[in-house]
Amino acid sequence: MSAEYRVGVIGLGGRGMGHIHGILTERDDTIVTAVCDVYEDRMQKAVDYCKEKKGWDVAAVPCYRQLIERDDVDVVFVFSAWENHVPAAVYAMECGKQVGIEVGGAYSLDDCWKLVDTYEKTRIHCMMLENCCYDRNEMMVMRMVREGVFGKVVHCEGGYQHDLRSEIAFGEENRHYRLRNYQNRNCENYPTHELGPIAKILDINRGNRMVSLSSMASGAFGLNDFAEKNEKVNPALKTYRFAQGDIVKTNIRCANGELITLTLDTTLPRNYSRNFTVRGTNGYFSEVCNAVYMEHVHGEWDHKFYNNVKEYREQYEHPVWHKFETEGIKGGHGGMDWLVFDAFFEALKNGEVPPIDTYDTAAWMAITPLSEISILNNGAPQDIPDFTRGMWTHRPEWDKNHGFYALDK
Amino acid sequence: MSAEYRVGVIGLGGRGMGHIHGILTERDDTIVTAVCDVYEDRMQKAVDYCKEKKGWDVAAVPCYRQLIERDDVDVVFVFSAWENHVPAAVYAMECGKQVGIEVGGAYSLDDCWKLVDTYEKTRIHCMMLENCCYDRNEMMVMRMVREGVFGKVVHCEGGYQHDLRSEIAFGEENRHYRLRNYQNRNCENYPTHELGPIAKILDINRGNRMVSLSSMASGAFGLNDFAEKNEKVNPALKTYRFAQGDIVKTNIRCANGELITLTLDTTLPRNYSRNFTVRGTNGYFSEVCNAVYMEHVHGEWDHKFYNNVKEYREQYEHPVWHKFETEGIKGGHGGMDWLVFDAFFEALKNGEVPPIDTYDTAAWMAITPLSEISILNNGAPQDIPDFTRGMWTHRPEWDKNHGFYALDK
Repeated sequence: MSAEYRVGVIGLGGRGMGHIHGILTERDDTIVTAVCDVYEDRMQKAVDYCKEKKGWDVAAVPCYRQLIERDDVDVVFVFSAWENHVPAAVYAMECGKQVGIEVGGAYSLDDCWKLVDTYEKTRIHCMMLENCCYDRNEMMVMRMVREGVFGKVVHCEGGYQHDLRSEIAFGEENRHYRLRNYQNRNCENYPTHELGPIAKILDINRGNRMVSLSSMASGAFGLNDFAEKNEKVNPALKTYRFAQGDIVKTNIRCANGELITLTLDTTLPRNYSRNFTVRGTNGYFSEVCNAVYMEHVHGEWDHKFYNNVKEYREQYEHPVWHKFETEGIKGGHGGMDWLVFDAFFEALKNGEVPPIDTYDTAAWMAITPLSEISILNNGAPQDIPDFTRGMWTHRPEWDKNHGFYALDK
Repeated sequence: MSAEYRVGVIGLGGRGMGHIHGILTERDDTIVTAVCDVYEDRMQKAVDYCKEKKGWDVAAVPCYRQLIERDDVDVVFVFSAWENHVPAAVYAMECGKQVGIEVGGAYSLDDCWKLVDTYEKTRIHCMMLENCCYDRNEMMVMRMVREGVFGKVVHCEGGYQHDLRSEIAFGEENRHYRLRNYQNRNCENYPTHELGPIAKILDINRGNRMVSLSSMASGAFGLNDFAEKNEKVNPALKTYRFAQGDIVKTNIRCANGELITLTLDTTLPRNYSRNFTVRGTNGYFSEVCNAVYMEHVHGEWDHKFYNNVKEYREQYEHPVWHKFETEGIKGGHGGMDWLVFDAFFEALKNGEVPPIDTYDTAAWMAITPLSEISILNNGAPQDIPDFTRGMWTHRPEWDKNHGFYALDK
């Protein structure tokens, strides 16, 4: 058991502790050497957990910059509140540390450019750990797209459709950053769970790019209603004027003519769904219908094709999932958490560009501030910067060494 | 059997002949006295059909204005190509004839204002015969909304999602106007099948209104691909640069904070769906899932609630459908065609404002030219005119006499 990577973890809320528990203490090649959080009790819990489970002596470092600077930290993971993702990532790159960040949107285009500028200066990539890129259906559909099953892909749709009313409304008690964001901002605040897999399918930054977007939001009704119905919620929230609309719709035009539609949908009652949908000239995949619809195979007027994904599984299962299932599924969220971390370490080990690189991270995170401006301006279209500075037109030729976990081949 | 209404029919394509066959010759209170089409053979067919089935002597009138002017025409139905809906409707109102028009979008805001101006001058309404307002699920959901089942409604979604590639690509042979529209225009060309029921649910023009929209379109790939695959299609269409994008997404903001999302989706392979979706603070209805999802009743993490609409049918079936089913479903498209015509004649008989009045017709048709401008301007938001001239703020009080077929109570 050789611990090749000494890991510093910034952010020890539910997600950070989950990753320590489910992945970092389970791998043979990682040792957690330092943890950081703004709350003392969380750090203590992480230190105790690592000691108990693995016997590691983990340093508790309240300042994220001091954690990054430590000699016993090679790799930095940023699982903290959204606001700290870019500052921590940029400082890690500047300090020569490898870095992976949890998902989330940016607060400004300037922050996205900072990631890119810092990569180009340091040649260290910031990989967004977008687990949904590695979920089973998303990878199967990516393979089907690469093999031409759907023909020319024309439209992709997806959403973060998750009833988070309880998490948000109890944000004070839970110390969760979503509450303050919903109180103050109105935007597509969490675009990457759906956009990540779609961007990979559409070759964004590698032969294609996102050109412009328009976002519109509904009013904010869900959280007030939730507070009204639930005695335990802070009664001030019954009439609090939340900034964040319940539903945000974002349309994105791509250079090659595709349209992407994103939905943020987190403060009304509903079942979980990412509504992953890929439409092509030959047929489509729909997560909601759990189905593949193929021209000449399925009928326009009946719904018998619903739930037929299993019929396509064997032929189109992605090799990453074949291997994963043969060797046993590991980690949280059905395995995709494990896979995205494994992809991170595999790229590191092989000296490869990570499969989600700094250009991807920046482009995906940019949707959030652009959607905010668009909503404030009644849906006015916003140009999406070309973070590759024109290199998207020929990146496929020089940047395809993503190994087993490649998301662009 | 007294024929109270002498009907002139303009437009004898598939839809016009369908209505003559399925409704006008089946009712006790209507007699077709004149028909009009640009094609002689279609007129002859209609004349022969009415003679054979009912013994009527129907006049064939190539000019729609001459048909409208005839003394033996009391009611004019416009089933012709989209381009002729407004000119024919306006002329009918000016001639003092009652008028109903088939669904479709307008070509300019000016045309929408013409409808309103002409109503206000003549006090004759132009009712759009939007059959989907009377479909079973739409009416059940309208009742559920009125009874507060879903709480505050926040977001409604719908689409015209129908694989029309064959109809369009063979438009020359079929003499179908869709072909020329798809060749030249890029817009939400058919918004009302989904928008009609949604507008009624959201009280548009009666306490609420649509304020602005943004539309974006994908590129046009589906029809070229279809021509490529099908030898019988005119080979020129393989490379024809169609204007109409395969997928058009339109977001509409409403005065009371609701968001509406429309989808036009007619040139890629798919099953038929209007994706009728109503989201509220207590739960939602989804046509695609054929389901009602209710807070505290259904689970966030399983899909067992799919296909549960039947559980809600008995309690919330709309009276219009209760009666219809008791007495036997009649007419095309599962009955909704019959119902919308029955609503037209019932309002006429009772001297009531039709349940879809000129303000509704104008507002719904306006989405098309506004979406066209928005798409041409990269999704730039477009103000939606208030065709009621401010009356929407208090119309609920003075205009609620829509009888049995009311769509706003």
